[in-house]
Amino acid sequence: MPVVTIQPSGKTVRVAPGGVLIDALRLAGEPFEAPCGGQGTCGRCTVRLIAGDAPEPPGAPPADLPLDMRRACLARVGETDLTVFLPEAAGRAEDRDEESGDPAFTPDLSPDVLALSPLAERLKLAVPEPRPEDGLSDADRLERALRPVCGEAEVVLSLPVLRALPDALRRRDGRIEAAVVREGRLLHVVDLAAGTGAGRIGAAIDLGTTTVSVQLLDLAAGRVLATRSGYNDQIACGQDVISRINYAAAPGRLAELQARAAATINRLLRRMRQDIGLAAADVVCAVLSGNTVMLHLLLGIPPEYLRLAPYTPALLSIPPLTAAELGLDLHPGARVHCSPAVGSYVGGDITAGLLCTEMTDGDAEISLYIDIGTNGEIVLGNGDFLMTCACSAGPAFEGGGIDCGMRAADGAIAAVRADDATGRASYTVIGAGRPRGICGSGMIDLMAELFRHGWLEPSGRLSRARPSPAVAVEGRRARYLLAGADESATGRPLAVSEADLENLLRAKAAVYSACTLLLDQAGIGFDALARVYVAGGFGRHLHLENAVTIGLLPDLPPERFRYLGNASLKGSSLLLLSRAHRERQQALARRMTYVNLSHEPAYMDHYTAALFLPHTDSARFPSVAK
Amino acid sequence: MPVVTIQPSGKTVRVAPGGVLIDALRLAGEPFEAPCGGQGTCGRCTVRLIAGDAPEPPGAPPADLPLDMRRACLARVGETDLTVFLPEAAGRAEDRDEESGDPAFTPDLSPDVLALSPLAERLKLAVPEPRPEDGLSDADRLERALRPVCGEAEVVLSLPVLRALPDALRRRDGRIEAAVVREGRLLHVVDLAAGTGAGRIGAAIDLGTTTVSVQLLDLAAGRVLATRSGYNDQIACGQDVISRINYAAAPGRLAELQARAAATINRLLRRMRQDIGLAAADVVCAVLSGNTVMLHLLLGIPPEYLRLAPYTPALLSIPPLTAAELGLDLHPGARVHCSPAVGSYVGGDITAGLLCTEMTDGDAEISLYIDIGTNGEIVLGNGDFLMTCACSAGPAFEGGGIDCGMRAADGAIAAVRADDATGRASYTVIGAGRPRGICGSGMIDLMAELFRHGWLEPSGRLSRARPSPAVAVEGRRARYLLAGADESATGRPLAVSEADLENLLRAKAAVYSACTLLLDQAGIGFDALARVYVAGGFGRHLHLENAVTIGLLPDLPPERFRYLGNASLKGSSLLLLSRAHRERQQALARRMTYVNLSHEPAYMDHYTAALFLPHTDSARFPSVAK
Repeated sequence: MPVVTIQPSGKTVRVAPGGVLIDALRLAGEPFEAPCGGQGTCGRCTVRLIAGDAPEPPGAPPADLPLDMRRACLARVGETDLTVFLPEAAGRAEDRDEESGDPAFTPDLSPDVLALSPLAERLKLAVPEPRPEDGLSDADRLERALRPVCGEAEVVLSLPVLRALPDALRRRDGRIEAAVVREGRLLHVVDLAAGTGAGRIGAAIDLGTTTVSVQLLDLAAGRVLATRSGYNDQIACGQDVISRINYAAAPGRLAELQARAAATINRLLRRMRQDIGLAAADVVCAVLSGNTVMLHLLLGIPPEYLRLAPYTPALLSIPPLTAAELGLDLHPGARVHCSPAVGSYVGGDITAGLLCTEMTDGDAEISLYIDIGTNGEIVLGNGDFLMTCACSAGPAFEGGGIDCGMRAADGAIAAVRADDATGRASYTVIGAGRPRGICGSGMIDLMAELFRHGWLEPSGRLSRARPSPAVAVEGRRARYLLAGADESATGRPLAVSEADLENLLRAKAAVYSACTLLLDQAGIGFDALARVYVAGGFGRHLHLENAVTIGLLPDLPPERFRYLGNASLKGSSLLLLSRAHRERQQALARRMTYVNLSHEPAYMDHYTAALFLPHTDSARFPSVAK
Repeated sequence: MPVVTIQPSGKTVRVAPGGVLIDALRLAGEPFEAPCGGQGTCGRCTVRLIAGDAPEPPGAPPADLPLDMRRACLARVGETDLTVFLPEAAGRAEDRDEESGDPAFTPDLSPDVLALSPLAERLKLAVPEPRPEDGLSDADRLERALRPVCGEAEVVLSLPVLRALPDALRRRDGRIEAAVVREGRLLHVVDLAAGTGAGRIGAAIDLGTTTVSVQLLDLAAGRVLATRSGYNDQIACGQDVISRINYAAAPGRLAELQARAAATINRLLRRMRQDIGLAAADVVCAVLSGNTVMLHLLLGIPPEYLRLAPYTPALLSIPPLTAAELGLDLHPGARVHCSPAVGSYVGGDITAGLLCTEMTDGDAEISLYIDIGTNGEIVLGNGDFLMTCACSAGPAFEGGGIDCGMRAADGAIAAVRADDATGRASYTVIGAGRPRGICGSGMIDLMAELFRHGWLEPSGRLSRARPSPAVAVEGRRARYLLAGADESATGRPLAVSEADLENLLRAKAAVYSACTLLLDQAGIGFDALARVYVAGGFGRHLHLENAVTIGLLPDLPPERFRYLGNASLKGSSLLLLSRAHRERQQALARRMTYVNLSHEPAYMDHYTAALFLPHTDSARFPSVAK
């Protein structure tokens, strides 16, 4: 069998002739990703041949590649040995995690729901000694000790808790600390004496298609202990929800996606626990919010019917589960509550995110909520009505599908200005070091700045009429040089292609046209909106003015916008801390009206009209056109 | 390393010098048991040396063994090779299962609780097709279809059911068969479309210290499909509950006992499923009854505090569990309900067994319930009061602790008569073949007949004064020859030693004295009893008259006795079939008063007085003495 040698690591692996190169790379322990699901369309797995050949099959999608480059997801190993070189920026899963968040940040419990009433309570109990004459078992005595706290609720003792009970009650003369979670008429005892954190920690989890964020909170103090974000390991199986649904169709693949989602969350949890010195068993509850497809995949429920008319989800309201059932590295009995979804493409991330706004309050004026991610979700309404829809934006806002794109993490260009005279970029890098790539807010800035100063045409093409030293035209294609090889952290130039800019154009058109459609259906115009809440994983770097300039957000006075950041994560933290928020979310989810864009023929017209900077109808953007 | 060769199988195994011989036998795949837990006291693991030697250590308990015999649980392998011969009757786990029961037997639902209302219901549902406009998920539609059936109950969908739901609803246009189990305010959906049995099968399980019995029932028809009994695999870890509690104290041992209990039940289930052609997934619920220690062990709960004053169980009322949690080979989501216990030594087998009597009815006269097993449990009372206690009888009634003892299964001598002139035995063998051993009812008959005809003294010793060709006196010991080598199925003689008879004498004394104590506490005499219910695993062969003759049962007119057989198993079947029985059991368990014999100094006096045939106080047994 031919040997494949991988540089610069020097690893070797034997594979059968005819095998796909990417499988050989994965076999060798190179954590190689194919965001397009191995279709050869994203080009992220491109590698350089040093010796031997691995031809791509005839009929592969065309690609403008140098002669010695191959897409590993398509290239086949031949009969002879092969040496390949993996460029640093190739699709390897890098350690691109954010720094842990600010532990001093205290979630803002809105005035009307101020009381701290965490999902898991930690109770100090004194359980009386067993006596021969009373005929009470250990479980009976524990229940009696809990009775003043749990009222009418039925106490639920799981098998692991029952196994620990006899020794726990006798270790310190009946003095125990119980972690309990109330669920309707049931009171679950999760743990009788947890580890160092003694059952006072909860996890908020935002399971996004592209980015996963996790936050650990001290439930008794209402304090954030740590925050981490990272790319979803499922990206290797497809960049958006539709490609993941397709991927899940083959046998064993659903289990793989499930394992990858859990592995992503567990990796982030592990790092946070290391940072702050916690045991997994200290985390006794979690609130998990994500879109409907992500939740189906995490739960291992076939997502197929979400993709087929009439797009029916298996479930919207998810029963409480244990961490062990989901494969999450928390206390095995930790209760995991998932935010309820509204429809197949408006999920729990939205019902969680809305908790960070005032728009659902009884006396609120009509507002718009826009969550900008791989899917864009829109909510329109107030205390009286709530309409919602979702559109597919692709991963551009999270740095996906962009040659040198990355998440809003250390090394990302997060803000860009273009020089009016030369078109050259100046930029701000997260963490202040050399740039490794560009994130969503940087891409929005770049598009806005290039358009504003005339380097980008309204169609999204780089201007051929106004040459800039930063624009390289190669045949019919052009690229914008963001940073030279000498400036970048990778030693290679960072450039944005017209294809990258088109991805962003399509993404912004999808979001804006979804907003337009929802307002049309409600019979109101953008100027009637009291507030526009913008959520998304842009970190602190989104320039709302630039988002308006490219036509992503409506042209409204700046004071009407509120940028929320990762509202799904923040909402999940609020849910961990406050019973009022938990009740509010359930009520919200029930009263939202779901509009399925695939049933709305007008949506495609709106979308096409928005594939322009800022819009084909410039009257919609007076401040940009002026 | 020396090689141990095992005859007659010819197996060989290499073991380190100094290793215990029984471990070598087990390593070679000989399923060897040491009922005394490896203490060298029961002699059941005795093997014959053919070549080489394996000395028993100095200080081992004495045993009258021929020079070439060794107790495998004590003998140590030396430096040189060894050949041993395993006698057929040695402690190997034989296939001693009963024939499957009579499938035509229909459990008797008492007149007041006649309605068949099985634990698991099988519902044929027509779930409407998904429609784009209603915003309902698959789970929502299933719940709506269940609503007319489940009323106010909350529908519980487990993760496996949710995973199966999307395909199940679309396979036959929404026509599904759901197996559901109601538990208080919850309705658990166990399965949406089970295998061949389509979710209509339930299992009744009696988990005894010595014998485990399982019955499969067609829940919709109220019909028994199969019954099997076998020895509890835990016997290898100790014969009675106290020795098992001691065994469980070392690390890993509790998990071993748990696995052995589950393996015993699973073996019986597997054979029955093979007999009647069922899949494991067809069995969607189970009722399990057993004594308190057995339940602790099956659940993996440390049993230690059951043995230490004040003898407090971890729990008496066991929450419903799933088959997967317990490691039982049923439908993984099958709901397993365990009968509630009353105290540390009066378990769910008793609260189940009482359902087979009328003594707890509102208008019942005072009756006595005696469950004769390794533990003897006694209940005294009527519709107004119920007192209960337990005593340790040892395994003699189930053929344990008797040299040629066996369970009441094919090949067992179940009934014995002794010839008045010669003392020689004539006997009845279950299955009508040659005898392989003697079971509990045979031992009771034998003791009664030998005593009746003067071959046995009131002390339980074989008479030296009246020689019989069936009695062999060897020094200070004597044995009674039940069947010669030419008669027995094993080719070896079947003999009962005086030690065997002593075991039975102690067992009967323990039970009778417990009855005496309970009646004393209630201030009534035996003649005040309207009924004496006798439960136990004797099969159909218990001669009540002989049980009175040896002083096991009180001397009352025969018409007052009711022999119930395995009431724990029958009661479990009733619980599977009838909600009224399930409610009745819960009420029963709550109103029973538990008397702990270890707190009653009078018990030891009663016991000592009963170590005689029929009793030291012959006035108690006028019909025997006459």
